[in-house]
Amino acid sequence: MNEKPVVLALSGHDPSGAAGVQADIETLAYTGCHCISVITSLTAQNTAEFKSMVPQPPERFREQLHLLTGDIAVDACKIGLIGSIELIEIIGDYLASARFPVVLDPVLGAGAGADLSSPGLVRAMTAHLFPHTSVITPNLEEAQALTGCSETGQALHGLLDLGCKTALITTADREGEQVINTWMCETRKIHSYRWARLPGTYHGSGCTLSACLAGRLALGDPLSTAVDKAQEYTWQTLKNARRIGKSQLHPGRFIQ
Amino acid sequence: MNEKPVVLALSGHDPSGAAGVQADIETLAYTGCHCISVITSLTAQNTAEFKSMVPQPPERFREQLHLLTGDIAVDACKIGLIGSIELIEIIGDYLASARFPVVLDPVLGAGAGADLSSPGLVRAMTAHLFPHTSVITPNLEEAQALTGCSETGQALHGLLDLGCKTALITTADREGEQVINTWMCETRKIHSYRWARLPGTYHGSGCTLSACLAGRLALGDPLSTAVDKAQEYTWQTLKNARRIGKSQLHPGRFIQ
Repeated sequence: MNEKPVVLALSGHDPSGAAGVQADIETLAYTGCHCISVITSLTAQNTAEFKSMVPQPPERFREQLHLLTGDIAVDACKIGLIGSIELIEIIGDYLASARFPVVLDPVLGAGAGADLSSPGLVRAMTAHLFPHTSVITPNLEEAQALTGCSETGQALHGLLDLGCKTALITTADREGEQVINTWMCETRKIHSYRWARLPGTYHGSGCTLSACLAGRLALGDPLSTAVDKAQEYTWQTLKNARRIGKSQLHPGRFIQ
Repeated sequence: MNEKPVVLALSGHDPSGAAGVQADIETLAYTGCHCISVITSLTAQNTAEFKSMVPQPPERFREQLHLLTGDIAVDACKIGLIGSIELIEIIGDYLASARFPVVLDPVLGAGAGADLSSPGLVRAMTAHLFPHTSVITPNLEEAQALTGCSETGQALHGLLDLGCKTALITTADREGEQVINTWMCETRKIHSYRWARLPGTYHGSGCTLSACLAGRLALGDPLSTAVDKAQEYTWQTLKNARRIGKSQLHPGRFIQ
């Protein structure tokens, strides 16, 4: 009975399975890790529409988190959609004593269009989560909401100034022939990555990227290797995407 | 972009990932299907202890179910832990117009020990779900709670009398050198299957079995083939089990 690294996912649930905790479970299985999870929010959505979300009551979330992590040792943590300031505070308290890498995907606008940002949520995320974050993975819009900077280089500096150890800004949300991702490492050197933009629109690419990053870190990869491999995997899942619903495509996370 | 059959899982969430919707997602991925899911209940549990559960409010569950199934066509449905009579009624209403196979895993005692049965819950399940069920997969204790019969043959007849199309009673919950599963098909013929009992205790074997059954049916297998293959797969996942937490083992659902 060989053991696999364990990644704790703190994510929302997307019934369609394109994003959220199912993206984490599938990505981590493919990456060779085991996912454990505490669900932050239950959402009503499909491939065309994000209708509503209900965060877990804080005391329920805390109970599940402590029962789980009291039993199972965690090798890395991935944080996705959270949805309430109270949950951010509980996660921050938990991470304060953590000795494993943390990947934060700061979901401020859910894929299908809802605005989940608010000044209070952004402040809480900055104060409670950034100091524990090994890699933050915002798209350009989220990076701007978090730092006030619209230029990628400035936003990267802003994210590190605010306490993140490293930051990877993606432009999957923009247009152009290429998706340009930009990673600022611990020494503030900037690394650019260019990926051919694939046709179609996808739901769950950010969840896939951040879950794979956490998985690679749990497996022991250095940060730069994990950043490379997670982008490569995510691009392959989009190339392998499937039409499950009527609108956005599902990343195909089990690549043959 | 090839398409995969879609299985709708209506299950609870187990943070440890051994059982519940994660068992469904992993099993269905391995089986070659795509899982979509509406979570019935969020639970606080680990590999040693089932502490508590909170079912979704009925109106939230209904909203998620309708939004999801209005967008994505379903090829089969797997039902696991439900946790409230109201949710059973909503699921029954939904299945009344369904034209796909339904696998019902009537979870009455969660793996880690909590008693989730009550006379009202059993009555609601019988009235609202049995008429739509292609295969019900209780263990012997659950079959007894559902039919009042402690003998396997009588319990199988009882389950078919109550409206299930076929029934597979497992004895994973008992002792002995072999696990003996017994399936009663549509013509009331009884088929017995014997599996070497593996050492250790496992969490999520019933979820794995029922999810694989639903996946095989979604792929177009006849019932008898699906019943064969799902047992074979489940046994392999137990042979491939891993120690993730301190107590019960996790089925290893990605067999190399």
